[in-house]
Amino acid sequence: MIRPTSLSLLLASALVLASAPVLAPAASAATQQQTGDASPVLVTPAEWKAMAAQGGSAPMFAREQQRTTKQLDAMIKRGIDVPVPKDPGGGYTHEQHKRNYQAIEAAGTLYRLTGDKRYATYARDVLLQYARLYPTLGPHPAGRNEVPGRLFWQMLNDSVWVVHAIAGYDAIRDTLSPADRQNIDDNVFRAMARFMSDQSADNFNKIHNHATWAVAAVGMTGYVLRDPQLVSKALKGTREDGSAGFLKQIDQLFSPDGYYEEGPYYQRYALAPFILFADAIERNEPRRVIFQYRDGVLLKAVDTLVQSSYGGYFFPLNDAILDKGLDTEELVAGIDIAYAQTGDAKLLSIAQRQQRVLLSPEGLQVASALKAGKAKPFDFRPALLRDGGDGRQGAMSILRMNGEDGQALVMKNTTQGMGHGHFDKLNWLFYDNGQSVVTDYGAARFLNVEAKQGGTYLPENKSWAKQTVAHNTLVVNETSHFDSDWKVGETRPPTPLLFQVTGDMQITSARMEGAYDGVRFTRTMALLSHPELGEPVVIDLLRVNGNTPARYDLPLHFNGHIMQVGFKAEHAVAQRPVLGKDNGYQHLWVDATSQPAAAQRTLEWLLDGRFYTYRFDSSAPTRAILAESGANDPDFNLRREPVLIQRMDGQKDATFFGVLEPHGEYNGTAEYVRGANSHIDRIERVTGSDADVIVLTLAGGKTLALGVANDPSNAASEHHVSGNGYDYRWRGGWARFEEKSGTAQTPPPEARP
Amino acid sequence: MIRPTSLSLLLASALVLASAPVLAPAASAATQQQTGDASPVLVTPAEWKAMAAQGGSAPMFAREQQRTTKQLDAMIKRGIDVPVPKDPGGGYTHEQHKRNYQAIEAAGTLYRLTGDKRYATYARDVLLQYARLYPTLGPHPAGRNEVPGRLFWQMLNDSVWVVHAIAGYDAIRDTLSPADRQNIDDNVFRAMARFMSDQSADNFNKIHNHATWAVAAVGMTGYVLRDPQLVSKALKGTREDGSAGFLKQIDQLFSPDGYYEEGPYYQRYALAPFILFADAIERNEPRRVIFQYRDGVLLKAVDTLVQSSYGGYFFPLNDAILDKGLDTEELVAGIDIAYAQTGDAKLLSIAQRQQRVLLSPEGLQVASALKAGKAKPFDFRPALLRDGGDGRQGAMSILRMNGEDGQALVMKNTTQGMGHGHFDKLNWLFYDNGQSVVTDYGAARFLNVEAKQGGTYLPENKSWAKQTVAHNTLVVNETSHFDSDWKVGETRPPTPLLFQVTGDMQITSARMEGAYDGVRFTRTMALLSHPELGEPVVIDLLRVNGNTPARYDLPLHFNGHIMQVGFKAEHAVAQRPVLGKDNGYQHLWVDATSQPAAAQRTLEWLLDGRFYTYRFDSSAPTRAILAESGANDPDFNLRREPVLIQRMDGQKDATFFGVLEPHGEYNGTAEYVRGANSHIDRIERVTGSDADVIVLTLAGGKTLALGVANDPSNAASEHHVSGNGYDYRWRGGWARFEEKSGTAQTPPPEARP
Repeated sequence: MIRPTSLSLLLASALVLASAPVLAPAASAATQQQTGDASPVLVTPAEWKAMAAQGGSAPMFAREQQRTTKQLDAMIKRGIDVPVPKDPGGGYTHEQHKRNYQAIEAAGTLYRLTGDKRYATYARDVLLQYARLYPTLGPHPAGRNEVPGRLFWQMLNDSVWVVHAIAGYDAIRDTLSPADRQNIDDNVFRAMARFMSDQSADNFNKIHNHATWAVAAVGMTGYVLRDPQLVSKALKGTREDGSAGFLKQIDQLFSPDGYYEEGPYYQRYALAPFILFADAIERNEPRRVIFQYRDGVLLKAVDTLVQSSYGGYFFPLNDAILDKGLDTEELVAGIDIAYAQTGDAKLLSIAQRQQRVLLSPEGLQVASALKAGKAKPFDFRPALLRDGGDGRQGAMSILRMNGEDGQALVMKNTTQGMGHGHFDKLNWLFYDNGQSVVTDYGAARFLNVEAKQGGTYLPENKSWAKQTVAHNTLVVNETSHFDSDWKVGETRPPTPLLFQVTGDMQITSARMEGAYDGVRFTRTMALLSHPELGEPVVIDLLRVNGNTPARYDLPLHFNGHIMQVGFKAEHAVAQRPVLGKDNGYQHLWVDATSQPAAAQRTLEWLLDGRFYTYRFDSSAPTRAILAESGANDPDFNLRREPVLIQRMDGQKDATFFGVLEPHGEYNGTAEYVRGANSHIDRIERVTGSDADVIVLTLAGGKTLALGVANDPSNAASEHHVSGNGYDYRWRGGWARFEEKSGTAQTPPPEARP
Repeated sequence: MIRPTSLSLLLASALVLASAPVLAPAASAATQQQTGDASPVLVTPAEWKAMAAQGGSAPMFAREQQRTTKQLDAMIKRGIDVPVPKDPGGGYTHEQHKRNYQAIEAAGTLYRLTGDKRYATYARDVLLQYARLYPTLGPHPAGRNEVPGRLFWQMLNDSVWVVHAIAGYDAIRDTLSPADRQNIDDNVFRAMARFMSDQSADNFNKIHNHATWAVAAVGMTGYVLRDPQLVSKALKGTREDGSAGFLKQIDQLFSPDGYYEEGPYYQRYALAPFILFADAIERNEPRRVIFQYRDGVLLKAVDTLVQSSYGGYFFPLNDAILDKGLDTEELVAGIDIAYAQTGDAKLLSIAQRQQRVLLSPEGLQVASALKAGKAKPFDFRPALLRDGGDGRQGAMSILRMNGEDGQALVMKNTTQGMGHGHFDKLNWLFYDNGQSVVTDYGAARFLNVEAKQGGTYLPENKSWAKQTVAHNTLVVNETSHFDSDWKVGETRPPTPLLFQVTGDMQITSARMEGAYDGVRFTRTMALLSHPELGEPVVIDLLRVNGNTPARYDLPLHFNGHIMQVGFKAEHAVAQRPVLGKDNGYQHLWVDATSQPAAAQRTLEWLLDGRFYTYRFDSSAPTRAILAESGANDPDFNLRREPVLIQRMDGQKDATFFGVLEPHGEYNGTAEYVRGANSHIDRIERVTGSDADVIVLTLAGGKTLALGVANDPSNAASEHHVSGNGYDYRWRGGWARFEEKSGTAQTPPPEARP
């Protein structure tokens, strides 16, 4: 069911609103405040009635209700427990306060869905205990360098508590005696809102996801308590002047393509308060047409987040926990609310995979649509996602072939991503066959595991996971980009140069200046399919221009068991040294090191029944180093993962080029192997004055070549590259050739985002 | 549909047959030979007709037929290719000859199922090419130390070729001209049968799974060619005196419980020819009632093989590839044929999981029964599986709680298992939560991967995988059991002492003498559940008695990421040494080593969302060593897996004891952790003159204790153990106590296998 307002009208009013920043409080809330009405506002009484009547007939909604009932009944049976805050993340009081907000929300919901007064009473009694406890609390005893909360060690968790608990409270508020209502209003929610906003204005007025949770908490509290000033502060910052608050956060934290600058892991986390608060705004101040705000960027953000996943898991860029994916509850909210806004049946297939819905009108819409068989496959597609509020702070390129479990190449040309960003400009990841093949370590953290430093980011997050050498991009002189200063990184985004998609070819390119003084590097990556190759291959061309001779390292973090090392090396078999001293190098155990050579090399590995051959070469001699993470890690905080590093010493300008080829099949069950040998015999680079051509010689002798201009963004330039029996001419940033010489067979088509 | 012969009649005739070893050729085959009848005998014409008529209505059978049709049509389209043999396993000619036997079998089958003459013609044409090629062949050029074949590098594969191709040939033989039939009879199947039997009598007459494939090939050829002498040789060896051949193999290779001495991986492989040939015997000489032979041991072997699995994968004992499990084609044949014999609906749930059936009358029975919804859950249960033809060569103990994905403890008290056996007496494995928690490396081999030594066993199979230190059992003076001589191992099986199952307790025990000169060790392992423990825990008590002071190492190979190292150790963080020189120790990188101490220690790890705490102590000071496989492995042949080693120096007698406790939950998706702390505070051993008591103090102070007699097999002995404030009395091999003192609350019940 799509909201029956016409889209053009909504857009029109959005424009009006955008130019009228100071709004009067919404009439409904204002009216209610005056009359003392305590009926629900986050979900309307009519909506609750409809859900109570129809929920049972939509299986996924009914299952959700059953699950919630079971959990809540168990909580109620255990008795109320509102402990004095003490523990950090993962500890007992932390987890108990989490359980309590879930229970309050569940109790309010189930009271409305079943009419069972027992649930309302339970929610009330829990909240009355909080009304007793909360006014007695000072800063949390386990608060560390994050902004401390009162119930939790960081205020962030206090905000999350309110976002959920207020929903439960809204559902039961009209069942309370005036005294209880006043008590809870004042001593829980108004006190917490005051603490989060005016008393913590620095945090509240940040443009940061922690602040989004805070503004959502305060704003939703404002609607429920009929307090327009709380809403106004939530929307426009404590000064109520629009310099901070929800609208400013939408303006600045999302790019025009709905990319959130900290990356998918935090986008997921941030999305929930954006979406939940927007939903509250939509109900209470529909005139704001918040879902159309900034060209509908909140809805784009939901789509973008799903696009930023493979095999159900988010790309683990920046500080990211690897096991987060499409089934997280934040995205359940995102999908349900986005579907209610758009009626896009492709979102339903994600809901199907989540096997969860909100116990809300939106969740019921999704469950009913699924029951009616309306789901369509989600459209995972190549995408260029611009970064930055203005869309000019770099971009993330996603190349994709062969659908959801096919090939996905992610090139991270985004800006730093604030304090959770990694020093990984022009880094890439590759997925194939449902697996992560070229990897990103993600964050060094065991979320909520007390034994691992209370579940916070581990020291190795800084010493390894953030460092450049932990990524698949250029390291100069064994130091990290921006000398590991993220604030510098924020000011120097990469420059996207190219993003184009054709039938058998997808290509993207970007340039980075300022990651290192006096060094500029340009990287072009392409996904090419060809009838004589079993699967599409990745071509990587990295050109470096430096002022002074330097050590250039290019790591490739891969996933799988090595089958063949296609080069001679000295193996550290009986005593294993560490690769370096600092900037992540101290965490690498060396397995093997080759002598410097200017020869083509290969490395083949096996992952989940498929072989991968990486074939690589460079403009000057390199050593090839095989290493593994895990050194200098006395607490066993790191996973142990292999890496190949190409190391070139003493050059100013340098080019690294390679091709990664998925091939063949190992089937242990049926005991057969096919295609274990690479279908590519050779990779060569032919270089000209203003362009390079990477030539692959396929098994059988045919060539497949990719011409790339030194400035791939110039679509009009003419190029001629010849040598070694090759001769290529083309116009534009790139061209594909399937002969040893010739002009481009097909002019590069237009970009398709 | 169960075969309509009455069971008692079958058993009666089995008895008669067993006492009449020399049989006349079966009448049907003999008659056919004289009349020149060429109609099918491995599946009868009537059965083929029934399948053609009914197959379409049983979905799994129909899908199998579709899949087969698709594959075969693609083969036919590619054209016939019968190359001159050249490559080892995994190479082109190897794989092509494999594809060819699959195609011949498929073509014969589809000809019968569809009546499409095209398939018969294709099978004929392929076989005519073999008739041209085969007589020209000498020993395979890639033959190594295994018995070389002619089509394949080892004769084993030639045998497999025949077992499948003969089935296809049988189906089309009556469509051939007499000349073609004679040509293929003589130049393919009779020539191959001669090569495998009389010309390779040493191999053929072995009591070994390779020989089972050979006798099956020759015997099935005998039925199809109407040659009773081939059948006789297959059943009774080339000398036809019963000293070798199929019946002798059944007698000796399976234990009375259907355990195959090489272990589950080879049991799976060996099972196929046993079952397929038995099926052929059943059809052609039903008077042999072969499936009742030796108390129905072939059918027991199917059940035993399924019991020897967890999470769908076989226990990787001895030389085993880890990805083999219930869905292998060998077990598809086993399940289908066993179901046809027994009508046991519990086998159907395994077939359901396999999602495959044979295109045979038995496969159709299974598919029809599944369609009719007859499947019942397979009964995974605790089991004592005796080893050896006489059942006296040790045993494998399987303890299980909480069903298929619950806890399984495997204690390997079996005999050596011939050349594929590992030096791992009294080794154990533990599964929980669907995962392998305490592991066995299996084999160092990449089956069929040419780059890995042609897919054969790697050097590291001998230098690491077989060695004692690669297992979870006692190593004396850094050498392996039997000084790594498997032939000595064959003569010295462990002695099973105990196997009992009660409601909250399962226990098993065995003793090993002769693995090391002058050393005897007795190990008792138990799985205990308790209301105050989230999951059942494993108690391990290992008593060693030696003649001279020695170094005792007790490894624990675990799977997961270390959360907490509960002891002080020196960490090798910047230079990583190797643990030892030989016997597998050269493959271990050291991560950390503690000083010797006689203190209780713990190690906690996380695996797939569950925590595991191993709490251990011993009778004398030990060092605790944390290490990882992968040293001295220049070809990256080994997986890198962690191990904890308890090392005790200078003692003659020693006791090691420990408890492994699964607990809590890490949920990365929903972001919560519960029960991350062990629920056990302490483990202690109280020792008496003839028994030990292992006392666990649970969080909260209650005790849970296990008394174990030094001779756990003596059910009548009286024991009294006291000290440290504990006082325990019981009668029998073991007792469980839930107080600090007392007599056993429940007398140990009778053993239940």
